[in-house]
Amino acid sequence: MPAEHYNIGCYLLDRLEECGCAHLFGVPGDYNLRFLDDVMAKEKSTANTASPFKWIGCANELNAAYAAEAYSKVKLHYTNRTNEKQISAILTTFGVGEISALNGIAGAMSERSPVLHIVGGPSTATEARRDIMHHTLGEGQFRDFVKMSEPITCARAVLYEENAREEIDRVLLQMIFHKRPGFVLLPLDVANAPCDPPSTPLEPIAAPVSEAALQQYREAVQGLLANSRHPALLAGYLCDRYGGSALTHTLITKTNLPFAVQIYGKGVLDESLPQFVGSYCGSTSLPSVRQVIEEADMLVTVGAFYHDIGTNFFSQKIDPLRTIAIQPFEVTVGGRRLTGVPMEKALLILTELATAVCAQWPQTIPQHITKGITTPDSDKGPLTAFHFYTELEDNLSPNDILIADIGTTCISASAMVLPHNALFVNQFMWAAIGNALPAALAAQLACPDRRVILLIGDGAAQMTMQEIGTFVRYGLKPILFLVNNDGYVIERIIHGWDEPYNDIQGWDYCQVVTGMTRGRADCKVIETIGDTAEVLKQSGEGNMNKGASSPGKMLFREVMLGRHELPVVTTMKR
Amino acid sequence: MPAEHYNIGCYLLDRLEECGCAHLFGVPGDYNLRFLDDVMAKEKSTANTASPFKWIGCANELNAAYAAEAYSKVKLHYTNRTNEKQISAILTTFGVGEISALNGIAGAMSERSPVLHIVGGPSTATEARRDIMHHTLGEGQFRDFVKMSEPITCARAVLYEENAREEIDRVLLQMIFHKRPGFVLLPLDVANAPCDPPSTPLEPIAAPVSEAALQQYREAVQGLLANSRHPALLAGYLCDRYGGSALTHTLITKTNLPFAVQIYGKGVLDESLPQFVGSYCGSTSLPSVRQVIEEADMLVTVGAFYHDIGTNFFSQKIDPLRTIAIQPFEVTVGGRRLTGVPMEKALLILTELATAVCAQWPQTIPQHITKGITTPDSDKGPLTAFHFYTELEDNLSPNDILIADIGTTCISASAMVLPHNALFVNQFMWAAIGNALPAALAAQLACPDRRVILLIGDGAAQMTMQEIGTFVRYGLKPILFLVNNDGYVIERIIHGWDEPYNDIQGWDYCQVVTGMTRGRADCKVIETIGDTAEVLKQSGEGNMNKGASSPGKMLFREVMLGRHELPVVTTMKR
Repeated sequence: MPAEHYNIGCYLLDRLEECGCAHLFGVPGDYNLRFLDDVMAKEKSTANTASPFKWIGCANELNAAYAAEAYSKVKLHYTNRTNEKQISAILTTFGVGEISALNGIAGAMSERSPVLHIVGGPSTATEARRDIMHHTLGEGQFRDFVKMSEPITCARAVLYEENAREEIDRVLLQMIFHKRPGFVLLPLDVANAPCDPPSTPLEPIAAPVSEAALQQYREAVQGLLANSRHPALLAGYLCDRYGGSALTHTLITKTNLPFAVQIYGKGVLDESLPQFVGSYCGSTSLPSVRQVIEEADMLVTVGAFYHDIGTNFFSQKIDPLRTIAIQPFEVTVGGRRLTGVPMEKALLILTELATAVCAQWPQTIPQHITKGITTPDSDKGPLTAFHFYTELEDNLSPNDILIADIGTTCISASAMVLPHNALFVNQFMWAAIGNALPAALAAQLACPDRRVILLIGDGAAQMTMQEIGTFVRYGLKPILFLVNNDGYVIERIIHGWDEPYNDIQGWDYCQVVTGMTRGRADCKVIETIGDTAEVLKQSGEGNMNKGASSPGKMLFREVMLGRHELPVVTTMKR
Repeated sequence: MPAEHYNIGCYLLDRLEECGCAHLFGVPGDYNLRFLDDVMAKEKSTANTASPFKWIGCANELNAAYAAEAYSKVKLHYTNRTNEKQISAILTTFGVGEISALNGIAGAMSERSPVLHIVGGPSTATEARRDIMHHTLGEGQFRDFVKMSEPITCARAVLYEENAREEIDRVLLQMIFHKRPGFVLLPLDVANAPCDPPSTPLEPIAAPVSEAALQQYREAVQGLLANSRHPALLAGYLCDRYGGSALTHTLITKTNLPFAVQIYGKGVLDESLPQFVGSYCGSTSLPSVRQVIEEADMLVTVGAFYHDIGTNFFSQKIDPLRTIAIQPFEVTVGGRRLTGVPMEKALLILTELATAVCAQWPQTIPQHITKGITTPDSDKGPLTAFHFYTELEDNLSPNDILIADIGTTCISASAMVLPHNALFVNQFMWAAIGNALPAALAAQLACPDRRVILLIGDGAAQMTMQEIGTFVRYGLKPILFLVNNDGYVIERIIHGWDEPYNDIQGWDYCQVVTGMTRGRADCKVIETIGDTAEVLKQSGEGNMNKGASSPGKMLFREVMLGRHELPVVTTMKR
């Protein structure tokens, strides 16, 4: 059933393709089935292109939204250009599917990920008649639910035949500018209404520039640079989202500037650079990292901000008078806020000025990082958290994508040092447990040639476990580590160590995964020192898990750790 | 860690108990852990009472909300008194947990189920400081998400120490009156603030009564009754929610009034009564049912309304001039709407007047219902939908609770005839696939001594499958039939029969259930005629699945039906 004519659904899909969205996540439903015919037609017409468009049918809508949220993050990281036209998208059906997805959309709002939420809705005729329809509150109202998306999207539109092209473009442009989610309600007849294809490419909105502010910025930076002898840089994830990472790399390498990353910005910059000193998270950072950041006589922050769990409850010590804080659309230098100075221009000016004076800076960066402790071969015995996370860190490879669910796995991973061009995908800000499993799906789709490694706890995995089947449905072969530590250990740490409310029903996870994949995953339990290293070495060497088309199977490992195996080990080894 | 003093959390729990809520569904999270200590204390203090209070930790929040939605429905049905103080409740954590639950709360709004959504929130001090907290949008705002609950709740409150008692009571009273969900945001310090216990029981809000309208109603009914020779009654689910079922039974049995039920009101009235003629759903009803309802010279409708899938797209033929439409708070008689006539009074007056004249009505009801076709023992071979649903219907027992997920299973079940005191739990209005699995959990908790039978399709089951473990966690032993018909067959019927977007990843469901229950479920595949009858006979005879404390195991059966096995069979047999 291909589309009979070019229609508004086709227009929307062409715009998605233009915006780097090659995978549409979602779940079919009675109000979006007709539009899915257009999606199938798009699949066929792009099948032999460099970037084939693909429908990714998920097991439920929340999982689809989590996947879409991660997809944009990963794609934005690896393209990394200012004003990049890069979004992701999810398709749901009116009401039931739509609302089920909202927690993932809220996550995208919080984490700055431009996800377009497309909701297939009842026809405009149904709405005009105020029919009592299923998937509604039973009152002939069809605008109840769009209100629920208001707090969690930067732009919304109810599409009609007359406004659809303009409104789709408006929502997309706002999303590209703000790096936040958008929403369109697509009634089933509107999707099928004829229209013309896009006549010109979308022209991203440029960040406002004030020449006066640029000049003030230049002077203020010169003032700080003049007296600086031991400067440093701290990057947060907004650096990555707004395409500032490449320019920040240039600044660092040209001037030999030592840098740290916030734990929720980990992977944004290349941690294999000699200038990397570690992760900064306030009072729980390594003392060497605290020294570099907190005692810098000029600190450049790029897309950094300070939230409770990323700073050990606001324990950061950042002196605004010595700081150049670069944000997406403005800077604050020495405590003075200047609007009209976008990140790109701020970084270019800073690089120009710093290059001229950096000879007076230390030429060697103290080697703060002791990369791992190689576990001796003779070290045998039951697995501990120390050994698991150390073996993992020691066996990461360049270009790996490491995804850790919020909780003890994420905290452990945030203390690792990543190899060249590796990425760490996390959700430290929104912190919805379970999100990382669908995120791994998205990362492997976005980057079929990279090795994707998931870390997720047992409580988190149970939230979204049904998405396991989707990996094999689309021929993906990531490495999934499920850390079984007997319940919600991160909650036990916060409150109620032995309380039954932090317990969960134990599963035989290998059996569940085997059932959900019909035997197409290689499932084993890890209980011994050395097993983690072995699975990573094996998969790295044979390249068997890199990419959808490679031989071999998806690897699933249930990692047996007791609830007392806390995630402090990796930060203590340095 | 018991509560140190009587506090607002304790007050809330005491009010829940007063409102018939003996099970609190939910998921722990960092903003509700302290309140969970109060919940544990409540468990201990009620452990030896007739109605012990119990925390039901679910695998995720959407499932918890679906469970809570069904819990109220089931409890309201079996208590069935006007103005019943009966609610259910779910506990989530701010943002991530809260929003994940919203689709279940929206379902409760649509289906008229009073669910209290309790959200544990950041402390009032955090809010006052506008800290950038995880689980927020990162802007120091803490009221973004309560807005999302506005369209889907009848009352909301943000609790503070000063207002908590009054606001809790206000929200509960609105929920009891409207039979719709409510919302309270409970900051973690507020939960722990000292307060006094309830001083008096909640006094439900009485429906407004107009003596003049009652008189006009009485006269209008007398006018219709005077000329009626073949009246009938049609019940919808609002009859059940507002406590009208017992009075409706009295009306029917006293006057020998033939009656039908709407498919979404199925089980509301006792279908073992001789006056029962079948399910009415417009043009797809059995001809005999259409005749009784559409040709009645006086039709009484109780809590009935007409929505698309319940009427085969508004094909009902109901003449308003001959109809007495009784709604929760008003009636419409012969096309004239009278407010101030609550359901209870309307039914009492009608029963009084009808009893006086019913001698002129037919004394025997034509036997429209041919209860099932008993499958001959010699009928062997591969399973078909006809045999599966027929065997199921033929082997239902009095007091069973049959729960069918929306889709082909629900449509099939809606044509069955239920035994005495059996209930059919459905979600025809909100129609969120996957809801029935957590609903079965709730039903078995609400009614531990009844046999709970779940019907769910494979696509639906994948949405909420992780909740399987919760049955064994709490020692429940329902019978779960998973109809494997290879994808979203209800969507295939609507559009895209062979399109890949209606496919799902196939699972080995028995293996998944065995893994999620660690072998504590009896899992088998049903592929042969006779197997369905056998499992029901066995479980019914041995009583092994009735109640949490009985011996035996939860029964899980994967029912192998091809996608071509459509659910029309049971309606055709009559």
